[in-house]
Amino acid sequence: MPDKVLIYSRFPKSMIQRFADRFDLLDTGGKPAHELFPADEVAQIRALITAGATRLGAAEMDRLPALGAIVCYGTGYDGVDLKAAAARNIAVGHSPGANAAAVADIALMLMLASVRRLIVADPYVRDGGWAGAKPSPLMRPPPSLAGCRVGVYGMGEIGRKIAARVAAFETEVGYFNRSRYDDLPYQYFPSLDALAEWCTVLMIAVRASAETTHVVDAELLKKLGPDGHVVNISRGSVIDERALVVALKDGAIAGAGLDVFETEPHAPDELTALPNVVVTPHIGGNTREAHVAMQACVVANLTAFFAGQALPYQVK
Amino acid sequence: MPDKVLIYSRFPKSMIQRFADRFDLLDTGGKPAHELFPADEVAQIRALITAGATRLGAAEMDRLPALGAIVCYGTGYDGVDLKAAAARNIAVGHSPGANAAAVADIALMLMLASVRRLIVADPYVRDGGWAGAKPSPLMRPPPSLAGCRVGVYGMGEIGRKIAARVAAFETEVGYFNRSRYDDLPYQYFPSLDALAEWCTVLMIAVRASAETTHVVDAELLKKLGPDGHVVNISRGSVIDERALVVALKDGAIAGAGLDVFETEPHAPDELTALPNVVVTPHIGGNTREAHVAMQACVVANLTAFFAGQALPYQVK
Repeated sequence: MPDKVLIYSRFPKSMIQRFADRFDLLDTGGKPAHELFPADEVAQIRALITAGATRLGAAEMDRLPALGAIVCYGTGYDGVDLKAAAARNIAVGHSPGANAAAVADIALMLMLASVRRLIVADPYVRDGGWAGAKPSPLMRPPPSLAGCRVGVYGMGEIGRKIAARVAAFETEVGYFNRSRYDDLPYQYFPSLDALAEWCTVLMIAVRASAETTHVVDAELLKKLGPDGHVVNISRGSVIDERALVVALKDGAIAGAGLDVFETEPHAPDELTALPNVVVTPHIGGNTREAHVAMQACVVANLTAFFAGQALPYQVK
Repeated sequence: MPDKVLIYSRFPKSMIQRFADRFDLLDTGGKPAHELFPADEVAQIRALITAGATRLGAAEMDRLPALGAIVCYGTGYDGVDLKAAAARNIAVGHSPGANAAAVADIALMLMLASVRRLIVADPYVRDGGWAGAKPSPLMRPPPSLAGCRVGVYGMGEIGRKIAARVAAFETEVGYFNRSRYDDLPYQYFPSLDALAEWCTVLMIAVRASAETTHVVDAELLKKLGPDGHVVNISRGSVIDERALVVALKDGAIAGAGLDVFETEPHAPDELTALPNVVVTPHIGGNTREAHVAMQACVVANLTAFFAGQALPYQVK
């Protein structure tokens, strides 16, 4: 009999299909398991698959008394209370690096689209403004990326791939990270403040935690300056979204490109009403190869767990 | 008294302001000069500034009997009949390379936006589809760029900058160009057909001419395959737009990113109605630094011409 695995977050069917071949899935669609399944079935659940950003705290763990493994689909695990899991002897796994190239690609897309104002340019052509010689919304040319200073906040696997891509655009690249890496050809800054003072475009690639909540606030955005852009492919919590709206409205910065938001799947109306923001629905890791690689990590973690072994992709 | 210079194409005022300090500008706004200015004034015009794609043939030259210099703003000069100019002893100048980095950046933006479907993704968030859990238009994940084969058609200054940027995305890069360059680390293909057979994403960076008209046709597009994308930042004439519309509708290719069109500023309604095309209004070279560099070439060409010298940036 295949092992039972709870699908804890809301996942598209196509994303979890591969797991159904190996495990007996109890798909909650993101709703509480005890509202959907019989109490004795819930009590037997030993492993679950979750999206790293979905909240999974002590209270939720206590509702699953047999739980031994929390397996995050993707690299993030910020929604999981790691201390609570450790106290209950629950192993936490993820898919490190599996989606790094795909996420870095989205970061570059958002940077270019924000700087070159694609969200305004496309409708100007599409809706006939250009053909009708209507006043162009693109009259003020943006600065070139060549020679521009791009700051990368967070130098994990995704940050490194972002930096490598950005450098090919003839930019100057700097970074801030808790650790300084001597193997990297980019300028190191000892603080996020110092990085923001130096750069015009800020790429957020830091692993989210309680410490990073709202570190990109009004003061920090102001440091980027009126030609500044901020791109976030990490977690929405890193940016104070209200401060970002004000900065974009006031012209404290020029634009923003966001794949992540504070309360997904909601993006504030005030934000999405702005023409100088580019938004995508958390699709950074959404490529075929990234899904295959992430799914392989999930399967490997679950298989090891049910075999009584340590997770091969355990959160450290 | 400053020398008179005809502004032959329609240019935004902000783009020609810098020339007004040095020359006496007769701005046609793109209309025929003889309809706007007195015949004796038109007869005295010795130099003009044009957009390279604007048609300027023997008949137009003959209406400006004193013409000695055609100065293109930008790198292209495909609208100018070079033989007719040579026969009339009219020098033709341009701004080679001045906008190469800016144009390459737009090419990458269009590639990423086409592959990752930004034009569908942004409204899904902006208009509340994501928050409302409406069916996602992004359910079928695209292939990753990492490992993808990208073909660059045309290896001039822009093509080289595109290739360098594309390579940073962990792709395989190939190219077709009349000349093969041994200094380039990319795979050379002896024909456009061979390149299209090999690659999935085709980046068009060729200098347009009579020979390149509609070389990207139905047959060639089919070679890219159902995951294929075509990006054009060169000239609209290189692609058979009708064939492109059919290929995009039928799924012969997955998407297209276009900064240029066959009959600018018109983009066909059939094309712009499609969700798998990303369009921009010929803004490849539209950055502050690119304009400054292009304007410097224009001023240098005109200054030399009026001083009786050869144009420093002459079309060869």
